[in-house]
Amino acid sequence: MSRFVLLPPEQAPPAPEWTIESWFHHQGAQTLADLRGRVVALHAFQMLCPGCVTHGIPQAQRIRATFGREDVAVIGLHTVFEHHEAMRPVSLRAFLHEYRVDFPVGVDAAQPNNPIPSTMEAFQMRGTPTLILIDRLGRLRLHAFGRPEDMAVGAAVASLLAEPWRPGAEGAGGGKEASASDLCDADGCPI
Amino acid sequence: MSRFVLLPPEQAPPAPEWTIESWFHHQGAQTLADLRGRVVALHAFQMLCPGCVTHGIPQAQRIRATFGREDVAVIGLHTVFEHHEAMRPVSLRAFLHEYRVDFPVGVDAAQPNNPIPSTMEAFQMRGTPTLILIDRLGRLRLHAFGRPEDMAVGAAVASLLAEPWRPGAEGAGGGKEASASDLCDADGCPI
Amino acid sequence: MSRFVLLPPEQAPPAPEWTIESWFHHQGAQTLADLRGRVVALHAFQMLCPGCVTHGIPQAQRIRATFGREDVAVIGLHTVFEHHEAMRPVSLRAFLHEYRVDFPVGVDAAQPNNPIPSTMEAFQMRGTPTLILIDRLGRLRLHAFGRPEDMAVGAAVASLLAEPWRPGAEGAGGGKEASASDLCDADGCPI
Amino acid sequence: MSRFVLLPPEQAPPAPEWTIESWFHHQGAQTLADLRGRVVALHAFQMLCPGCVTHGIPQAQRIRATFGREDVAVIGLHTVFEHHEAMRPVSLRAFLHEYRVDFPVGVDAAQPNNPIPSTMEAFQMRGTPTLILIDRLGRLRLHAFGRPEDMAVGAAVASLLAEPWRPGAEGAGGGKEASASDLCDADGCPI
Repeated sequence: MSRFVLLPPEQAPPAPEWTIESWFHHQGAQTLADLRGRVVALHAFQMLCPGCVTHGIPQAQRIRATFGREDVAVIGLHTVFEHHEAMRPVSLRAFLHEYRVDFPVGVDAAQPNNPIPSTMEAFQMRGTPTLILIDRLGRLRLHAFGRPEDMAVGAAVASLLAEPWRPGAEGAGGGKEASASDLCDADGCPI
Repeated sequence: MSRFVLLPPEQAPPAPEWTIESWFHHQGAQTLADLRGRVVALHAFQMLCPGCVTHGIPQAQRIRATFGREDVAVIGLHTVFEHHEAMRPVSLRAFLHEYRVDFPVGVDAAQPNNPIPSTMEAFQMRGTPTLILIDRLGRLRLHAFGRPEDMAVGAAVASLLAEPWRPGAEGAGGGKEASASDLCDADGCPI
Repeated sequence: MSRFVLLPPEQAPPAPEWTIESWFHHQGAQTLADLRGRVVALHAFQMLCPGCVTHGIPQAQRIRATFGREDVAVIGLHTVFEHHEAMRPVSLRAFLHEYRVDFPVGVDAAQPNNPIPSTMEAFQMRGTPTLILIDRLGRLRLHAFGRPEDMAVGAAVASLLAEPWRPGAEGAGGGKEASASDLCDADGCPI
Repeated sequence: MSRFVLLPPEQAPPAPEWTIESWFHHQGAQTLADLRGRVVALHAFQMLCPGCVTHGIPQAQRIRATFGREDVAVIGLHTVFEHHEAMRPVSLRAFLHEYRVDFPVGVDAAQPNNPIPSTMEAFQMRGTPTLILIDRLGRLRLHAFGRPEDMAVGAAVASLLAEPWRPGAEGAGGGKEASASDLCDADGCPI
């Protein structure tokens, strides 16, 4: 990913809602829909995945340090799909403490008879680390598995922030899924 | 520079024109005004400046790899202000070859009785490496001395690319300096 | 630790024996005394200690890659002194797998009413990562807390390997502690 | 070079003498023979060779920081075999200043009708960076082209330091070449 690979708004699907068992660094429940109006950088990781520890987590922290929190929500998603016993929440809690992760992290909900947790499956992730960018209107605009470069990630987030958008246009409920008819286009953001 | 520090368009001065003695990787002369309509990432360096070699040059190469050349012009500026005898063009040529620098590099014009070369003085640079971002209308929007992070640089370039701009609006001459009256504002780009 | 800081042989105390609850990558029990005749590089770590993950473990792997196994035994020691519930053996097993640690790792024995495990206390370690070098005769020659440089560690291990030593001189039992009287000196290794 | 690759003393040839045009950070002439009694780490580099700048020079500086100067002499050798006009002594002087190289650096003597300088040819170097280790008796014990690891280099230097050697045994002249008959063997160092 050296070039800019955002999906064009009109081709981008609405991001599916996540299913979270429990949160760290966030009180109470929080849906993806609650974040409508902000760009969401969703960083899916496993605490024992070396590429997540050396690349993904620090990159997520740099996203958080670079952009304002009123504009960009950095959310960690602990998507354990192997070594489940090794990465229970009690271990995750210590990991987050030791690595000084201070953004909200949700534990992706386990599924019966399936090693892949719920949100990971809903987003069709290929593994960890995965970085997903969701625009202010809830559309899935970038899905990067592996190690995207900071330069490209910074550019992608900034591009999403620069898209035309009218606060409040995302819907009165602040939480309903974006549908084709209420997406912004080059002319503006229809109600 | 972890946060976004672009000067607002209405506060940004027009970038001064550069004065180049000779070019590498570019045939014939090239003015900054020739690049109107593209974002310009001007990387000022000295070939014997360690911070330039380890940080600035590789970052300029990543800017070039991340953005399309029709949108972003990466230009090196060799601003020798010390050890002049050590960094003559014959040495610079070998340096650019060995470090596989393939973007255009201009040699900043020496000034009589002044160790600071001409363009470096015109831009009031504080040293090397310096990264300067100039928007499509020729306004100086970012001036960073030292080691800005890739995430922030990628975000800054992308923000400039996203600004409203109408091809051709930069003036028929394609080369005259932007003046206050022909700068874009939040409403659009006056002719 | 940029300079060479081995304790002189005549001042070095015998290394205490370790107390291990269970081993990974080693079948059956293994005492430190069993390794007499080889230099032992004992790397104490916790799987959720960032300095261990980024510095200590890779350095231990480089020690193993640089020196012959007949000469140098690289041993990991999992010295959990905080977040005990987070770093149970089931988690350690996955960690070792994911980080491709292939040297023997012993789990330091927990102590009742003491967060510090047994071997960590016996060696008076100050934290993790800690690198301890033990010479062929079982003497504790280097105790480094933190991040010693590879250059110095390579030099220290090689210095220990170069010390005069006669195979078999470490005693018929192959396991008894070195005492003052059976230590090598500049003239040789008394029985 | 992850394993220890010193030539055994009895197979190691005497290192050829160097031919130096001029010295930086050393007053007056200095022969390799003058350094008999110390281990010599000879780092051959070109100031515009990226691998030298990022790997070789910093490694030479770490050798110098790790070992005592009375034991180990770190010597730079500027072996220009390409871009000769680009790397004249006036440029080298500025390079050494900017990169804070403080060990002695000799400029390898140019040869008529041969791009390869004299010492580079005498040592049959394959390119830059090259690290050569010479033992206290002037024998060439390690010849590494490229990027040897710090761990292995530290081990190699320490091994040479640990070899049996009697101060003064290197010959009254302190400067004559080692010959087969005056080399140390496992038993000691004949006069």
